[in-house]
Amino acid sequence: MKKQLDGVNCLYPMPTVLVGTVVDGTPNFLAIAHVGIMNFATPHYISISSAKIHYSNRGIAENRTFSVNIPSEDMVKATDYCGIKSGKKTDKSKIFELFHGELNAAPMIQACPVTMECRLYQTVDFKTHDLFIGEIVQTYVEESVLTEGAVDFAKVKPMLFDMPRKKYWRLGEPFTDCWQIGLAWKPEE
Amino acid sequence: MKKQLDGVNCLYPMPTVLVGTVVDGTPNFLAIAHVGIMNFATPHYISISSAKIHYSNRGIAENRTFSVNIPSEDMVKATDYCGIKSGKKTDKSKIFELFHGELNAAPMIQACPVTMECRLYQTVDFKTHDLFIGEIVQTYVEESVLTEGAVDFAKVKPMLFDMPRKKYWRLGEPFTDCWQIGLAWKPEE
Repeated sequence: MKKQLDGVNCLYPMPTVLVGTVVDGTPNFLAIAHVGIMNFATPHYISISSAKIHYSNRGIAENRTFSVNIPSEDMVKATDYCGIKSGKKTDKSKIFELFHGELNAAPMIQACPVTMECRLYQTVDFKTHDLFIGEIVQTYVEESVLTEGAVDFAKVKPMLFDMPRKKYWRLGEPFTDCWQIGLAWKPEE
Repeated sequence: MKKQLDGVNCLYPMPTVLVGTVVDGTPNFLAIAHVGIMNFATPHYISISSAKIHYSNRGIAENRTFSVNIPSEDMVKATDYCGIKSGKKTDKSKIFELFHGELNAAPMIQACPVTMECRLYQTVDFKTHDLFIGEIVQTYVEESVLTEGAVDFAKVKPMLFDMPRKKYWRLGEPFTDCWQIGLAWKPEE
């Protein structure tokens, strides 16, 4: 039996990320899970959606750079804190050990196993939210989370965000390979 | 030790969806996990990224509607099949029992526990990919996956997609509530 939920978004769970910016010369970090993948080609483009009231938005618009850092489950307290406390009132620049790449105004978090350094490509205006689309200029991965050269999410231990029930979930186990199990299947089965 | 992966996108895992369209009068379904959340306000906007060679793109552009259906893990064979077989050569209109809402050219899948019926709002051109941004006009949820009125992803059993290792993952368990655990935390900890 289907129930109608008035057009609410239920496209979850999504990976929680820490977005790094510089605002008025100070690094700031914002927890966001309203993210997106824009293409699958070089260069790669990804998006973050950030409410216009957020302090980070001005830094992204001004510097035209940001970083997307994937925290591990063991960073949950600091990550959740970065989603609660605004940079307007709280200096979040000292929470993490930082590193920099070629885009100096995109501070990156040493402790995150995966970081993508982005150049702002386009901003789409959604009235209450800015959608910042970034071109990934470099991707930094801790060697300890690689398996045969590829990022292994069992090792990353991402925090998967669910808005309907406001929870962070663990990733379970992989149960099959993509573009394999459907190959031999017939719709009559 | 950080390794550089040449700007490849590692923003995973993402929820796998089946996108419903009508092309030349026939329903078609495409498996996609390059999705995105554009805002958090009414109306809600979400995105799907689809390579321009895909058959579905013409249907979305012409009818300006599509559906985003979240399949359960037990639909993995049919879902993977819809990601392998092109509608150009394969009639996928009979695989699923369908239902319709107010947008007639957005066929929806009865067996999927969560379905969002979308009106095309904007298309962003990414050279090899069309990013279709949809306004969610209605959300249909099986009552059996609700817990206290909210979608419960432990019951949905989504297929989480990972491009780096080309696997579908199960969701694990929720490990904490959002905007709670960080409240009492101090950066000095």
